Amino acid sequence: MGGGTEDGGTAVPEEERLARVALSKIAEPGDELVGRWLETYGAQEVLRALCGESALPGASRTRWEGLRLRARDVHPGEELRSVTAQGGRFLCPGDGEWPCQLDDLGAARPVGLWVRGPANLRICALRSVAVVGARACSEYGGYVAAALGSDLAGRGWTVVSGAAYGVDGAAHRGALAADGATVGVLACGIDRVYPASHAELIRRIGEQGLLVAELPPGDHPTKSRFILRNRVIAALTRGTVVVEAALRSGSLATARHARRLDRWVMAVPGPVTSSLSAGAHELVRTDGGSLVTDAGDVVELVGGMGELGPHRRGPSVPHDALPPLAARVLDALPARGSAEVAQLALRAGLSPEAVRAPLQELHALGFVIRQGKQWQLAPSAKPAGSHPIE
Amino acid sequence: MGGGTEDGGTAVPEEERLARVALSKIAEPGDELVGRWLETYGAQEVLRALCGESALPGASRTRWEGLRLRARDVHPGEELRSVTAQGGRFLCPGDGEWPCQLDDLGAARPVGLWVRGPANLRICALRSVAVVGARACSEYGGYVAAALGSDLAGRGWTVVSGAAYGVDGAAHRGALAADGATVGVLACGIDRVYPASHAELIRRIGEQGLLVAELPPGDHPTKSRFILRNRVIAALTRGTVVVEAALRSGSLATARHARRLDRWVMAVPGPVTSSLSAGAHELVRTDGGSLVTDAGDVVELVGGMGELGPHRRGPSVPHDALPPLAARVLDALPARGSAEVAQLALRAGLSPEAVRAPLQELHALGFVIRQGKQWQLAPSAKPAGSHPIE
Repeated sequence: MGGGTEDGGTAVPEEERLARVALSKIAEPGDELVGRWLETYGAQEVLRALCGESALPGASRTRWEGLRLRARDVHPGEELRSVTAQGGRFLCPGDGEWPCQLDDLGAARPVGLWVRGPANLRICALRSVAVVGARACSEYGGYVAAALGSDLAGRGWTVVSGAAYGVDGAAHRGALAADGATVGVLACGIDRVYPASHAELIRRIGEQGLLVAELPPGDHPTKSRFILRNRVIAALTRGTVVVEAALRSGSLATARHARRLDRWVMAVPGPVTSSLSAGAHELVRTDGGSLVTDAGDVVELVGGMGELGPHRRGPSVPHDALPPLAARVLDALPARGSAEVAQLALRAGLSPEAVRAPLQELHALGFVIRQGKQWQLAPSAKPAGSHPIE
Repeated sequence: MGGGTEDGGTAVPEEERLARVALSKIAEPGDELVGRWLETYGAQEVLRALCGESALPGASRTRWEGLRLRARDVHPGEELRSVTAQGGRFLCPGDGEWPCQLDDLGAARPVGLWVRGPANLRICALRSVAVVGARACSEYGGYVAAALGSDLAGRGWTVVSGAAYGVDGAAHRGALAADGATVGVLACGIDRVYPASHAELIRRIGEQGLLVAELPPGDHPTKSRFILRNRVIAALTRGTVVVEAALRSGSLATARHARRLDRWVMAVPGPVTSSLSAGAHELVRTDGGSLVTDAGDVVELVGGMGELGPHRRGPSVPHDALPPLAARVLDALPARGSAEVAQLALRAGLSPEAVRAPLQELHALGFVIRQGKQWQLAPSAKPAGSHPIE
C-alpha cells in the first residue's frame, strides 16, 4: 500500500502512514504549526487530538475549528486503497523512497507525498536539478529550457519542475525526449491535470518519471498552493536554475527557497532588452546567483558537491539495498561493453519501458554510465565487488 | 607647447618633455625594460644613452641596437611643433592633465600620451568607464553599446573605448549623441584614421571629446599595438564593461587588464545561444566579472568607490585649480536654477562647442549637475565657498 517496504527501507507502521494520509488531507501544505505538532506529538497523536476533545497548543480558536472541521471528513484507508489501485503511492518520512533532503524544510516539511510513476523518488532526487521559469516564456526561453532538460538528462541528472506552461513544460519535454528521468511536482492532486492542455505531458511524466504532490488526490491548485509547492521543488534538488523570469516572477520565489535551503541558485542570462530575463539577471547581479549557460555549467556547480559524485566515488549503496527492479536490471548489464535499452530489457525479462526508470536509478547511484543510447557498468562499480557481476 | 602649464599643474621641464617625445618614437608601447630605465635614470639620461656610447643594463645586443637605430632618427622639437600646430598636445607624467591612474601600470606606464580634443584628460578620466567588445558585434550588441554609451554620458560619465568597429564605435556614438565626453584611445598616431571608415566618428571624438594615443603621430596600428593599447583603456578607467565578446576576443584582454589593475570588470549578458556573448558570460561565470544590464548597474558599481563621488563629497579640487576654461564656464552658471548650453555659452562669451568639454569636466569634478539639457550648480558645490558664485 505505502511506498516503503518494497524498497528495503524502514517500514513505516500502517497506523502512522494512515495518520499522515489523513493529515495530508487536513492541513494545507507547509503549515508550520501542524509541522511543529508532528515533531512534538507524532502523527497519530495529532490526528487523535483533531478528531477528539483535547486541543493542541498554539492554534487560534478559528484555526483549530477549521482543522477539526476538515478532520471530520477523512477516510485515509479508502483514500490510500483508491490511490494504490490507480498505481499511486503515499510516501512518509521513514520510507525507503522518502527523499531525506526534505527534512531541511523543518516544520514546513510535507506531511507526506503522493507519488505516481516508475522511478524511485529518493534515488531520482539524489542527482536532481530544478529547472523553472516564466509560464509566458519567449521562444528563446523555451528553447533554452528544453536544451537544458535534454542535456541534464543526458548527463544522468533528474530534471525537476512544476509541469506548468512555458519553461517548466519545455524542461520536462527536453528530459523526456532524452529518455531521462523527470519529476513533476504538482500544486494539486496527482490525479488532477493542471494545466488542462498539459494532459499528455503530465501522463508521460507519470509513465517515464514521477508525478509528486503534497496535496491529496482530488485537490485543486490555488495561488498559495503554487507558491508553497515551490519550496518542495527547491528542497528536493541540489540547485534551482531559473531560465527566464520577469522581475516579480514566481520562479524567483523557488530560487529564494533554494538559497534559504543552501542549494545552488543559478540563472540563465538572456538579452538585457528582454524583460523576461530581468529576473534572471537580478538573481546573478544582487542575489548571489550563479550564471549558467548550459547543462555543463550547471553540472560543474551542483556536481561539485562531491559526496554524491558517483564516478569519483563508486556506488554509494550496496547491491543488496537496491530496489528489486534496479537490482534485476543491474544484473542484466554485460560485464564488458555496453547494451541498449532493448537488449537490457530482453536480458532482464522486462519490457523496455519497465527498464528505463531502474536504469536512471542505477545511473544516479553510480552503478552504470550512459553514452548516448548505450548503457554500461561504471568502471568504479566493477571493482567494488559489492554485486555479483564481473 | 606641452599640455602641462595651462592647467595649473606642475610644469614639466622642456628637456624632459622633449626626451619623452623622442622616447615615445623610439620605444614600443608598454616596453617594460625602457619603463624600468625611465624609473631608474629618468627620460633625459635614457635618451642620452641611446644616442651616445654607454649601454644601459638588461637589454640584449639586438634589442639595444634596435632601439639605437630608431634613436638616430628622432627630431622631438619638430615633432612637437607640428602636432601643436595641428591642435594636439603631448602629455607627460607630471603634467596637470596627466591621468595619474596610469601609474598603476608600473614599468608599462606610457612614456607619454599624444592627445587631441577639447576635454581635459585627467578630469575626464576621473569618472570614466571603458565600454569595449566585438568588432563584428550583433545588432543586439550594437544597440546595447550605444544605449550604454548614451546613458553613461547622460549620467556624467566619460565613455572610453578604442574607436574600432562594432561595440567600440557604437559606444562612442551613443556618448556623442548624448552630448557626452568620450575618449578614443587609438592604437596608432592621433593623426591617423583607423579604421578608415570611422573617419567621421574619429573626427567627432576629437572635436567633442578626446583622441589619445601612446604612439607618435604617423605610426600605424599593428596587432600587438592593439593589444597593448587595451591596457591603457583599462588603466584610464574605473572599470571595463564588455558588451559582446566571443570566447577569445581581444576585449577580454582589456577586461583581464582591468582586473589585474584592480578595476571593475563588468559584462553585459546576452542570449546563451549567441557565441558573441560567450566571452561576456565566461567573464561572469569564472573570472569574477560583474553582470550589468544597463548604465544604472554600471554606475552602481564603479560609482560606489566613494572617494570621487562628487554629490556626496562636494568638489574635489578648489576653484583656483580649475583649468581656465572650466573656471570661466563655472562662473557663467546661474547661482539659482539651471541653464542650457546655449545660455551658458552666451554668458561665458564662448561658442556652444567650446562650452561642452569644460561642462563635462565640471560635472566630473562635482561642481555641476545635469538634468537632461539643463545644467546647474551642484548643491554640494554651493556651500563649499571655494568659488565666488553664490
